Amino acid sequence: MTAAVLANNLWVLLCGLFVFMMTIAVGLLEVGELGERVVGSLVKTILITGLAVLVMAIVGFNTAFAPTVGGIIGNPLYGPGLFLGGFSPGIADSWWSVTGAGLRTGTYFLFETAFASVTLALVGVVALHKMKLSAFAIYSVVYLALIWALPAAWIWNPSGWLAKLGMVDFAGGLVVHGAAGAAGLGIVWQIWREEKARGLKVSTPVPYRVNPGWLTLAILLLWVGWFGFNPGSVLAFNDEAIVVVAITSYLLTSEIFNPLYVVNGILMGLIVITPLAGFVSPGSALILGLLCGPIFIYAEKFVGRAKWMSDPVGLFPGHLAGGIFGVLMIAFFAQNQFATGSGFPALPNGLFFGGGGAALKQLGIEILGIGVSVVAVFVLSHLTVRVLAALMRGITTSFAAEVETRTGAPAPLG
Amino acid sequence: MTAAVLANNLWVLLCGLFVFMMTIAVGLLEVGELGERVVGSLVKTILITGLAVLVMAIVGFNTAFAPTVGGIIGNPLYGPGLFLGGFSPGIADSWWSVTGAGLRTGTYFLFETAFASVTLALVGVVALHKMKLSAFAIYSVVYLALIWALPAAWIWNPSGWLAKLGMVDFAGGLVVHGAAGAAGLGIVWQIWREEKARGLKVSTPVPYRVNPGWLTLAILLLWVGWFGFNPGSVLAFNDEAIVVVAITSYLLTSEIFNPLYVVNGILMGLIVITPLAGFVSPGSALILGLLCGPIFIYAEKFVGRAKWMSDPVGLFPGHLAGGIFGVLMIAFFAQNQFATGSGFPALPNGLFFGGGGAALKQLGIEILGIGVSVVAVFVLSHLTVRVLAALMRGITTSFAAEVETRTGAPAPLG
Amino acid sequence: MTAAVLANNLWVLLCGLFVFMMTIAVGLLEVGELGERVVGSLVKTILITGLAVLVMAIVGFNTAFAPTVGGIIGNPLYGPGLFLGGFSPGIADSWWSVTGAGLRTGTYFLFETAFASVTLALVGVVALHKMKLSAFAIYSVVYLALIWALPAAWIWNPSGWLAKLGMVDFAGGLVVHGAAGAAGLGIVWQIWREEKARGLKVSTPVPYRVNPGWLTLAILLLWVGWFGFNPGSVLAFNDEAIVVVAITSYLLTSEIFNPLYVVNGILMGLIVITPLAGFVSPGSALILGLLCGPIFIYAEKFVGRAKWMSDPVGLFPGHLAGGIFGVLMIAFFAQNQFATGSGFPALPNGLFFGGGGAALKQLGIEILGIGVSVVAVFVLSHLTVRVLAALMRGITTSFAAEVETRTGAPAPLG
Repeated sequence: MTAAVLANNLWVLLCGLFVFMMTIAVGLLEVGELGERVVGSLVKTILITGLAVLVMAIVGFNTAFAPTVGGIIGNPLYGPGLFLGGFSPGIADSWWSVTGAGLRTGTYFLFETAFASVTLALVGVVALHKMKLSAFAIYSVVYLALIWALPAAWIWNPSGWLAKLGMVDFAGGLVVHGAAGAAGLGIVWQIWREEKARGLKVSTPVPYRVNPGWLTLAILLLWVGWFGFNPGSVLAFNDEAIVVVAITSYLLTSEIFNPLYVVNGILMGLIVITPLAGFVSPGSALILGLLCGPIFIYAEKFVGRAKWMSDPVGLFPGHLAGGIFGVLMIAFFAQNQFATGSGFPALPNGLFFGGGGAALKQLGIEILGIGVSVVAVFVLSHLTVRVLAALMRGITTSFAAEVETRTGAPAPLG
Repeated sequence: MTAAVLANNLWVLLCGLFVFMMTIAVGLLEVGELGERVVGSLVKTILITGLAVLVMAIVGFNTAFAPTVGGIIGNPLYGPGLFLGGFSPGIADSWWSVTGAGLRTGTYFLFETAFASVTLALVGVVALHKMKLSAFAIYSVVYLALIWALPAAWIWNPSGWLAKLGMVDFAGGLVVHGAAGAAGLGIVWQIWREEKARGLKVSTPVPYRVNPGWLTLAILLLWVGWFGFNPGSVLAFNDEAIVVVAITSYLLTSEIFNPLYVVNGILMGLIVITPLAGFVSPGSALILGLLCGPIFIYAEKFVGRAKWMSDPVGLFPGHLAGGIFGVLMIAFFAQNQFATGSGFPALPNGLFFGGGGAALKQLGIEILGIGVSVVAVFVLSHLTVRVLAALMRGITTSFAAEVETRTGAPAPLG
Repeated sequence: MTAAVLANNLWVLLCGLFVFMMTIAVGLLEVGELGERVVGSLVKTILITGLAVLVMAIVGFNTAFAPTVGGIIGNPLYGPGLFLGGFSPGIADSWWSVTGAGLRTGTYFLFETAFASVTLALVGVVALHKMKLSAFAIYSVVYLALIWALPAAWIWNPSGWLAKLGMVDFAGGLVVHGAAGAAGLGIVWQIWREEKARGLKVSTPVPYRVNPGWLTLAILLLWVGWFGFNPGSVLAFNDEAIVVVAITSYLLTSEIFNPLYVVNGILMGLIVITPLAGFVSPGSALILGLLCGPIFIYAEKFVGRAKWMSDPVGLFPGHLAGGIFGVLMIAFFAQNQFATGSGFPALPNGLFFGGGGAALKQLGIEILGIGVSVVAVFVLSHLTVRVLAALMRGITTSFAAEVETRTGAPAPLG
């Protein structure tokens, strides 16, 4: 095993730990912003992380990252990925798609599972106080095995059809944030359907109950955790990993002075840079950082007008809009020299760096990828909760239903 | 210095930091489960960590890990280990027993001291509210210099008599958890002797006073800290370190939905896998994970029948029973190919993998090692507190004695 | 890229993250010791970190670490450092002063920016409740671009005039702690001038309002963070980095049993070892650790007699006095063999190790460096706040002024 392989595995493993810490942070965010009980948050975090490890090990790691069937979905029976090799000692082999960097199957599994886990936690925020925990648990299994796996298989898996078209999404503007937003939208729509059926005119809002201490802990943990989010995605500790760290830190300067805007400012900056952190210069990152605040505020106002849903922590203006915006910006701000260092030598310069026709073509590919992925995730997510609703007599908590019609107050997690 | 040596040292050093964080987590567990004041917990954590660094540096690192005298105990005067070389610059040399991995004396010292520290913190939990802090401090010195050092010298030190017989204990099912349990038992017996002498019929229970916030922080910190516990024990960042990480995460799925069971479920899973994490497949780890819950619950009921002691955080059903169970399972689940990758090429396959007679022999060795180690640690621990009780007119707090006879309420840390 | 370069960059990057965590910890210290609102602390931490990243990227990294103009100040227009190369992909090149270790510009930038950030956070503690936040923000820009940059350019920059004389300061006894103390003194003096002008005879004390929970979190975070402070300063993960870690941990044993003394005991130990951690043996580190407590207590009494200022968290007895003491001790305790391993082969043995005349000369150089640096930082810091006071009609909060004259109670952050 060469020195570079050793260092790469160590690096990616540590980044996986940092990303894993972000699942914890999302749980604490629910405590700090929405007054969720801390034990409820802990149980949910353990449920999400535990299911992610288990479902991804059994099949989700394969459906997302094994050699694909026709570019559509990873082969679920691919040997090294199926339950991580089961009882076979073959797990230590390098994972097929990163043999150059020498990442072991276990390393790559943990890193990607941490990503899957944090996207599920983001989806879980819109389910808070509204969706039955049992429904959310079953939904999680489908999400991990299939819903999340599709955009990952298309874009991050080198044999995916979008990847082959040339689509890139560095650390998951679409695969992580956009997909979480689209999946959440599918759930929120079903919640509204049930609320409407109960005669509500407006979706019961989940009120803010800010607990500054837990909010602060959540923000600090997210901040530290993100340290591993973007740099780890280079999937190899090469020169460019460092550039990415610098850029990530850059964007942390775009904050505003209000506890809720502090968290959203940090998050928005981090979300927007996610899909292109490995492709742009520090100067471009600063410009992108400066654009984040206005975009979030405009998107939040737009979303806020929708009376049929409640989005207390900005999943749609933040993760969905921000993630998509960042992916689009690849076609404007990318510089081939940075992208080459990050392992994407085929990515052309963006429109602002003389990319011309190639950049326009890249923009088209990214738009295509965004459209197909968002629609697919939304439809699958909504179908899943529709089926669950049919089987479970609705996915919303019965307690919530009672309380809503009487007082409008939020119900505890079912 | 070769690249592999660089990466190995960096890896083990980081793992040491994670293990060190677990000592902090045990302190916060006392706050979150037993209502200990947070400053009291902090002072105790600093005391334990500080004593561990100091006593281990002066002599405990040698008694545990220096070349042994007849396989029984490390030579306390071995040069590089005695106060880490004192004023001599020789500290940077490789530690004798890990010259292959190239670990420096300082790296190895910090890693093992973090282990010693966390076992002492576990012992400290049964002393909470019952034992004089001064008595516990003196006990700690003996524990670090001698009591803990013995099983470490026998099993982890390659020149130890049990190691030479072929006993293995990957990351400390016996050396860490079992020994902590046996040592705690020695203390608890003396506490009961003093309580009985004061006329009590039943040991005053230390009541649960759950603080969900601190309990949550403690669990999350334990979880993150364990990340470094098992993988670091490979003592070299090789392919297998990664397998271990995957396995560790696997077991995190075995939780139950109650704040106290959440913590115990996580702990039990982590404890049981500790002694064999480097030897088994992901599939075996999952099976072991599934066995943890029932074992803990049965053991807790068994321990709960004993009226002469109070074990509020499950040191005996969790760490003692779970650690011993995990060590026994080596002879059933081990696979030579995994063990070879972890640096134990002599370990035979377990009974479930066709080990046959060799596996039976291994089972015998492990049982012998468990028996001798548990008895030795228990006897030495109890003798130490007996001597302390004679010198200090009892090891229990006088305040506790007063309160007990009148109200049965727990007393603050003396 | 060689294996050693890979490991060095990974190591320094991780250490940068740990140092960055200390800025967070200083913010929580204000919450835990002085009752600052946790959201106020969070906003201040984000402000400080954000400004540090931005100002250092634009110019401060160059004024401190670019090739100097006549040994006095780094060339602000040096290409790779000026806004980290702006839109140019040249950022990935190795930084000029550490080409041997192969550190990339981005790695080195993040590591040093984390240091600048934490020193600014230390200065911010004396401004708490007293100085307008707007004034502190403007002050921060000058501090990062110029005030902090000067001692860094003189001592840490290899082309600085003090570095060329032979002055050493391993991890910043003077560059970090001493400079923060001197800068804080410049602010405190201006606060006193404004308080005196309002007719006060004694500076309004900022009272202790201890919150044990946050104090505990702050201490634990500082402790973990320091793990990266000293070892990272080797700026290369070589054998000696490990020695440093061992020494850092050593000093953690010098604590006392009172929440405020616990934090100050830990801090004092860590501060004093900072400037010489890479140069001394474990034995010397222990002796230095034993000296820390008495020095702090004596210095605190001395500072406490001054009625014209308020120093609630010991910036002057701790960071200023402790940092200077540690730097002086280089000439007594250094051992050339350790220093050579840390990359300072020219440092002679200290007086206690037969250094003789060379050690005396080293002592003279260190005293010269301390004197010039402390005076320069103090004067520049004071001039900055004098100018700000003229422009903003005083730097103290108007609310503070009102409250002081009536009740003497502390005012919230302006």
